[in-house]
Amino acid sequence: MQLYSFFNSSTSYRVRIVLALKGLDYDYRPVNIRVGGHRDPAYVAEVNPSAVVPAIVTDDGVTLGQSLAIIDYLDAHHPEPRLIPEDPAERARVLELASLIACDIHPVNNLRILKYLQDKLGVTAEEKDAWYKHWVAEGLAAVERLLARYGSGPFCFGAAPTLADCCLVPQIANAERMGCNFDDYPKTMAAYRHAMALPAFAAAAPKRQPDFVQ
Amino acid sequence: MQLYSFFNSSTSYRVRIVLALKGLDYDYRPVNIRVGGHRDPAYVAEVNPSAVVPAIVTDDGVTLGQSLAIIDYLDAHHPEPRLIPEDPAERARVLELASLIACDIHPVNNLRILKYLQDKLGVTAEEKDAWYKHWVAEGLAAVERLLARYGSGPFCFGAAPTLADCCLVPQIANAERMGCNFDDYPKTMAAYRHAMALPAFAAAAPKRQPDFVQ
Repeated sequence: MQLYSFFNSSTSYRVRIVLALKGLDYDYRPVNIRVGGHRDPAYVAEVNPSAVVPAIVTDDGVTLGQSLAIIDYLDAHHPEPRLIPEDPAERARVLELASLIACDIHPVNNLRILKYLQDKLGVTAEEKDAWYKHWVAEGLAAVERLLARYGSGPFCFGAAPTLADCCLVPQIANAERMGCNFDDYPKTMAAYRHAMALPAFAAAAPKRQPDFVQ
Repeated sequence: MQLYSFFNSSTSYRVRIVLALKGLDYDYRPVNIRVGGHRDPAYVAEVNPSAVVPAIVTDDGVTLGQSLAIIDYLDAHHPEPRLIPEDPAERARVLELASLIACDIHPVNNLRILKYLQDKLGVTAEEKDAWYKHWVAEGLAAVERLLARYGSGPFCFGAAPTLADCCLVPQIANAERMGCNFDDYPKTMAAYRHAMALPAFAAAAPKRQPDFVQ
């Protein structure tokens, strides 16, 4: 399998965690989104029409983009360990938390948005920082409420990692890098720290990737 | 079942389409997000800790937020018609397109983001309009490429509607309201128009909801 990834991309990081948890080997294909590598015509035409990272190309030649679709696919084809539960009640909670992170938090703070704010709207560094922290704070407050109501540690939902943890970890790691404060999210941070202690989560971290640069 | 919804919310609209396609009855519970109804303490505590719309409360008392999680749940419990295919190859394409819309297009243009741009960053009406149209154009270009590569009409993927159509229709309807141009997306618009001709899609439209106002 090939994984098209950028070391600092949270959505790539989600898929790297899943591949590591399942023990799947893959060729790492770096796509430098800082210089527009995701818009390279050959990449868009042959690998990912969405023109984003991540994407996978399986050994059977299936190309697939969008981290949540990729993870659903990997979970069906390589079900050990199962990351999207089959039990309907557990499944609903895992997908709810994953969607909250993937739809309500991550998209408004990714690189292209921050670049647009800076380059096209001319916001100051302080305004950009406030924007980032505002959406993280609003989103993590919701994560914390969901975990308070439905969560059961030590992972987000019970004794084993799920898709929820695979989405949570990159989001928190990103927010740590941006200097956010996490005092109000004790359950969220407990789940994060628990996951980070696992070798699979550690191996997927940005600094462990071949395209990592400071 | 109860559906907590705002007439103009694209994510609520997705769930309304699914409920209509499956022929499920529900009580419509309006949440006016324009005046912060989604942050009402009783709503957050009792219905949706995410503090957004939509949310459902089933007849068994299950409360669930996040449109994609709700649709997955409804599709498992009321599988006629199936909207998230079981066949792995079809399923991957449907989830990829749905994720593209739900993660890459919708979140950066919803009400809270446009309000922040206007109220906190003081962008002009022209800048806000350009922001909206920029992300729609970038997103729909990706939708069009995905459909060109993997789609098969008359719906996004074949002869019956799927989750992809349930996400596409509200996104296009929203973009139409905002005056976007669709000339570059013929396959996307053909799928949109085909879906809009179905009574279930028409019944879910904002103007058909009890909380609709001009």
